[in-house]
Amino acid sequence: RRNTPANGDLNGYAATSPPPRRGLFDTLSDDLQAALLEFVGTTVFLMLAFGGVQATGAEQASAGANGVGVSRVMYISLSFGLSLLISAWLFFRVTGGLFNPNVSTALLLAGVIEPVRFVLFCIAQLLGGIAAAALVLALTPDALASNCTLAPGINPAQAVWMEAFTTAILCLAVLMLAAEKHIATPFAPVGIGLTLFACELFSVYYTGGALNTARAFGPAVVTGFPSGTQWVYWVGPGIGSLIAAALYAALKHYRYWTLNP
Amino acid sequence: RRNTPANGDLNGYAATSPPPRRGLFDTLSDDLQAALLEFVGTTVFLMLAFGGVQATGAEQASAGANGVGVSRVMYISLSFGLSLLISAWLFFRVTGGLFNPNVSTALLLAGVIEPVRFVLFCIAQLLGGIAAAALVLALTPDALASNCTLAPGINPAQAVWMEAFTTAILCLAVLMLAAEKHIATPFAPVGIGLTLFACELFSVYYTGGALNTARAFGPAVVTGFPSGTQWVYWVGPGIGSLIAAALYAALKHYRYWTLNP
Amino acid sequence: RRNTPANGDLNGYAATSPPPRRGLFDTLSDDLQAALLEFVGTTVFLMLAFGGVQATGAEQASAGANGVGVSRVMYISLSFGLSLLISAWLFFRVTGGLFNPNVSTALLLAGVIEPVRFVLFCIAQLLGGIAAAALVLALTPDALASNCTLAPGINPAQAVWMEAFTTAILCLAVLMLAAEKHIATPFAPVGIGLTLFACELFSVYYTGGALNTARAFGPAVVTGFPSGTQWVYWVGPGIGSLIAAALYAALKHYRYWTLNP
Amino acid sequence: RRNTPANGDLNGYAATSPPPRRGLFDTLSDDLQAALLEFVGTTVFLMLAFGGVQATGAEQASAGANGVGVSRVMYISLSFGLSLLISAWLFFRVTGGLFNPNVSTALLLAGVIEPVRFVLFCIAQLLGGIAAAALVLALTPDALASNCTLAPGINPAQAVWMEAFTTAILCLAVLMLAAEKHIATPFAPVGIGLTLFACELFSVYYTGGALNTARAFGPAVVTGFPSGTQWVYWVGPGIGSLIAAALYAALKHYRYWTLNP
Ligand SMILES: [Ca+2]
Ligand SMILES: [Ca+2]
Ligand SMILES: [Ca+2]
Ligand SMILES: [Ca+2]
Repeated sequence: RRNTPANGDLNGYAATSPPPRRGLFDTLSDDLQAALLEFVGTTVFLMLAFGGVQATGAEQASAGANGVGVSRVMYISLSFGLSLLISAWLFFRVTGGLFNPNVSTALLLAGVIEPVRFVLFCIAQLLGGIAAAALVLALTPDALASNCTLAPGINPAQAVWMEAFTTAILCLAVLMLAAEKHIATPFAPVGIGLTLFACELFSVYYTGGALNTARAFGPAVVTGFPSGTQWVYWVGPGIGSLIAAALYAALKHYRYWTLNP
Repeated sequence: RRNTPANGDLNGYAATSPPPRRGLFDTLSDDLQAALLEFVGTTVFLMLAFGGVQATGAEQASAGANGVGVSRVMYISLSFGLSLLISAWLFFRVTGGLFNPNVSTALLLAGVIEPVRFVLFCIAQLLGGIAAAALVLALTPDALASNCTLAPGINPAQAVWMEAFTTAILCLAVLMLAAEKHIATPFAPVGIGLTLFACELFSVYYTGGALNTARAFGPAVVTGFPSGTQWVYWVGPGIGSLIAAALYAALKHYRYWTLNP
Repeated sequence: RRNTPANGDLNGYAATSPPPRRGLFDTLSDDLQAALLEFVGTTVFLMLAFGGVQATGAEQASAGANGVGVSRVMYISLSFGLSLLISAWLFFRVTGGLFNPNVSTALLLAGVIEPVRFVLFCIAQLLGGIAAAALVLALTPDALASNCTLAPGINPAQAVWMEAFTTAILCLAVLMLAAEKHIATPFAPVGIGLTLFACELFSVYYTGGALNTARAFGPAVVTGFPSGTQWVYWVGPGIGSLIAAALYAALKHYRYWTLNP
Repeated sequence: RRNTPANGDLNGYAATSPPPRRGLFDTLSDDLQAALLEFVGTTVFLMLAFGGVQATGAEQASAGANGVGVSRVMYISLSFGLSLLISAWLFFRVTGGLFNPNVSTALLLAGVIEPVRFVLFCIAQLLGGIAAAALVLALTPDALASNCTLAPGINPAQAVWMEAFTTAILCLAVLMLAAEKHIATPFAPVGIGLTLFACELFSVYYTGGALNTARAFGPAVVTGFPSGTQWVYWVGPGIGSLIAAALYAALKHYRYWTLNP
């Protein structure tokens, strides 16, 4: 259920000196693997950042000169990121604080949780999405505003892959920050919440930024599935879980903690 | 006055291997309890996030096309969240940094503080609310802007329960992050401040986001109780303290630290 | 030059049980002191939060319906808070990362730095303010925008005391988070930067939010003292240093770490 | 490849008492060095903060009364800062999470990485910038919005030096927070991401805020180098790497950890 902590886990900050080395290319294999991962990481970093630029530009264009939408998209992104950050922090030592069936899937595939718990967690998370939407509807005077919809011009394939890539990043954050044990693990909820925040800055405008089937399912149940694109939020985040689990397996297989000699 | 730290406190990051297990359903009881709590947690996470969406939509509609209110509500939410974060950090090792009679109530019910201190703290906190309102009035040229009021269309029952649920989350943050002792406890003020920030993103527009009777009482005293809804900020947050204390007692009773085997 | 770490420093998270106690009022003296400090802390928390509400309301009124100023004041507050946070983090283990003659004054009065270093630091900080203003002027095509000015309607006494109280909070953050040694001390720059951010949300609109004589002096030197209110930024923050040093001395005298039994 | 941790590394929080001293000027040499560094640090702090003020003022002026640009520049700054923060956190124990050829250069010059890895990393980072731009273009319906351009009125020399100084601060953050080993090192990605955020608040409006040749190169490749100022983003950040490496070497040479006695 939990991975045995790798010996190399803390090697990033170990005080012991590395053994002496001689040739410039002795670590070429590690260097190549590390460079490949720098490519992946740079792509992740700049995809989210460029995505934010793209979203705010499109939002500003669609909202006209007064551009109110830019503030609103940031507000919504912050609501999701901050809410996950603190909820996961409160529940981190209780259930782990997943709150997301796609994260549950990634943890199942990574061997962190077992099938019975996985099934129960997914049911609980979908029901939680419904309960949250019903509560917000009950507590406020207006119609429910939180259905996920596609922005004008985006096609379903783009939406599916945007959800898939951003969900993969979120699941990878859970695997690398919380499932892997190291000094900063008690602060994983902070990193995971901020990861959702960064992903929302890219995706809220275009797809509503589900990254979580329960997040899209709950308001749709409460409002009677008004949009016809609900499937996007099952397929996209589902693919994201698979990508994250595969990348995590590869990182473990190649013993990522040996790349920084 | 302080709970004895539970043995299991750090089990979330313990390096010891769990004992071998055999059947898929051996941990069904723990799995069910954990799933129930995942339901609660997902509801908390998505209620606050959907609430933020709801508030910014309503605010945008009420403010007209230029939507200035969205930026303003975020500014106010940030002012409260950040101000609590840093004030609580400064006073954390002095008094605990509660600054809220509803948090005091939750800590009394949880057995963390005793009755004499509880009474003195509540008085101090209510007086602090008055002093802060008087200071801001004295230091600025305008009328005091910080009274809590209900948004157009929200009814008092909705306001009471919105205050109750958000206050419960804030009190639970204090109990789980500060009263429970673990590695991240010295950073509890950060989590508690961010919890208030997340709750404000939902409630500032609708109720003013008190989550704290002293916060509503202070400006009302200084301005002569102009609104007639002061009772909402005594009943709502009061219910919140009770919910948080009950949930915390249940978590301790079921030894929450054993759910993550 | 550094205070000897108090034994009680870590008592907030100590695992040892307190000695048994009998009467409800045995700790009345501690309870009273703690309640007095809860009053101070609640006042600090709510003064900054109410101040943010006040500032954004006034800014919105003065900027007209489109309320651009609210976003701008948040941008400026964030620039100062974040910039101090990261600069102080980078220089924390080098010079301490004060960057503020009023913080230097508070540390001198608290016995953390000695007179020679104090004088040299103040000179360096004032020169740094001038260099920063000159650099920004040189690197950008426009006139320098960063002079501190008083908002319409605020009188000099209000400005002096707003600067004094907010500077006192900033200096107290340095004393309680960085000068006092405890588990979270390596993260003091985060708390100190966020403290400046919270104080700016109150004061940027009204006074420019100096909280630092060097911050007001630098742009004034580069632009030829255009406003005639430079004295406010010497008197106000100067009083703030004295308040912080006095409060810190009182906290140490009454051994604040014994208030949480 | 890694610096041996200096003995003095943790002296900022060491519990041991300093040896007794007698004269007021015994530490004059250290005091002078520390004051010089306080000058540098204050300049960094206030340059970024004044830069934010400057940028938001210019942006507001150029966008007209509705000032939408202020929110947009903050959104973009946050996208970059947050995206680096979380990406670097995820990859910190894998490759180090540099994602920036100018950071790679600074680490090469500081002796933290070796030439083979440096070359491979730079290639990977430039390819990552192209991949990210291509992905955002593929996933969204609009033209790519993330090319770096110069603001109206800024001249190329100003742009080069703005990029150089901000890149130097970013590289120095990597060197002081991640390459130097101390208690807060596991949290270096937080500090480095926030450093980029602070630098963006100054530079996004004026130069696009590259601070990273790969960030400017990727979108330019995908869009066919539309602007003719690409060289600015190779020269400016390149100079920044040199400044950071030189300052870091000086700090090590003068044993910065001895300045705080
Ligand atoms: Ca290897
Ligand atoms: Ca159990
Ligand atoms: Ca005592
Ligand atoms: Ca020395």
